[in-house]
Amino acid sequence: MLVFQLLTTFVNMKIAIDMDEVLADPIHKFIQLYHRDYGIPLDLKIHAGNEIYHHVPEHINDKWFDYINAKGFFRDLPVIEGAVEALKRLQEQHEVYIVSAAMEFPNSLEDKYHWLAEHFPFIGWKNIIFCGEKIVNTDVMIDDRAKNFINFKGRTLLFTSPHNLLLTQYERVDNWHQVLEKLL
Amino acid sequence: MLVFQLLTTFVNMKIAIDMDEVLADPIHKFIQLYHRDYGIPLDLKIHAGNEIYHHVPEHINDKWFDYINAKGFFRDLPVIEGAVEALKRLQEQHEVYIVSAAMEFPNSLEDKYHWLAEHFPFIGWKNIIFCGEKIVNTDVMIDDRAKNFINFKGRTLLFTSPHNLLLTQYERVDNWHQVLEKLL
Repeated sequence: MLVFQLLTTFVNMKIAIDMDEVLADPIHKFIQLYHRDYGIPLDLKIHAGNEIYHHVPEHINDKWFDYINAKGFFRDLPVIEGAVEALKRLQEQHEVYIVSAAMEFPNSLEDKYHWLAEHFPFIGWKNIIFCGEKIVNTDVMIDDRAKNFINFKGRTLLFTSPHNLLLTQYERVDNWHQVLEKLL
Repeated sequence: MLVFQLLTTFVNMKIAIDMDEVLADPIHKFIQLYHRDYGIPLDLKIHAGNEIYHHVPEHINDKWFDYINAKGFFRDLPVIEGAVEALKRLQEQHEVYIVSAAMEFPNSLEDKYHWLAEHFPFIGWKNIIFCGEKIVNTDVMIDDRAKNFINFKGRTLLFTSPHNLLLTQYERVDNWHQVLEKLL
């Protein structure tokens, strides 16, 4: 494992990077929308292992699905702290690909494209992948959803998000600073 | 019969299938648009090795780029003959993925999604990939552009289109009937 990590540190690698909860912050927006529509507190803290819908009354816990399917939802999400600078630095040394399971929410396709163009203009169209299953052939995958690591043969970095805090079997990164420490 | 069943049980493959000039026919539409706007003949035949822009006067030979970037271009393309039935049959035995370099033309993203939903409703969102570089991890790739075979490790089938007729170094399929003969 050490040899593998040493190897992957010095060689130009292909790195697949997820969007939601890794580059973009949808949770912040969910909370704002639930607050606007149902008075859910803005300082809502999502407990380890939970999704946002575990913290709202049952009769509105599927509203997130309406929010996420609406045009515009993904267009103005906040950028996760440190992501822009980190991707610039990774790109100097590695081949960086954005790999988002956007196909589940077809109304997100254009929003996500334009969001990337606004915040990550240095990522060209050849390096953007909107998919369902992440059957990409890269050396590294950075993702908050462990299900995307199934069948992936490379090194996986689980990007910390409340919903994955109870998982212990993956190499974890809590923020973009830690990603750079591991991959540069 | 038992041998056949055993065989088909063990040859389940992941197959990446391109869209333009493989499932959908943009050339037909280019010719119609060039005809409408510049009087190019509707029975224009594209010679072996050529693209459509080799057959129109120089001052309009980059119009195809405007056409292809307009919203709606990809929404009503004709389906390539035999494609629907072929994908249904491939899907019975294999895992079929649609892999289109749609990211080059961001206005195509939604059109392509809805075109697939209309003509190939049996292909679920998990099996659709809109990308730039085709860095997919599949066993087979069916594509009319040989550039997409670079770095691909699996079996490649070059789907015949006028522009690729002079290439001789690839396993070639002229139509969907031939694809089924090779992969079923």
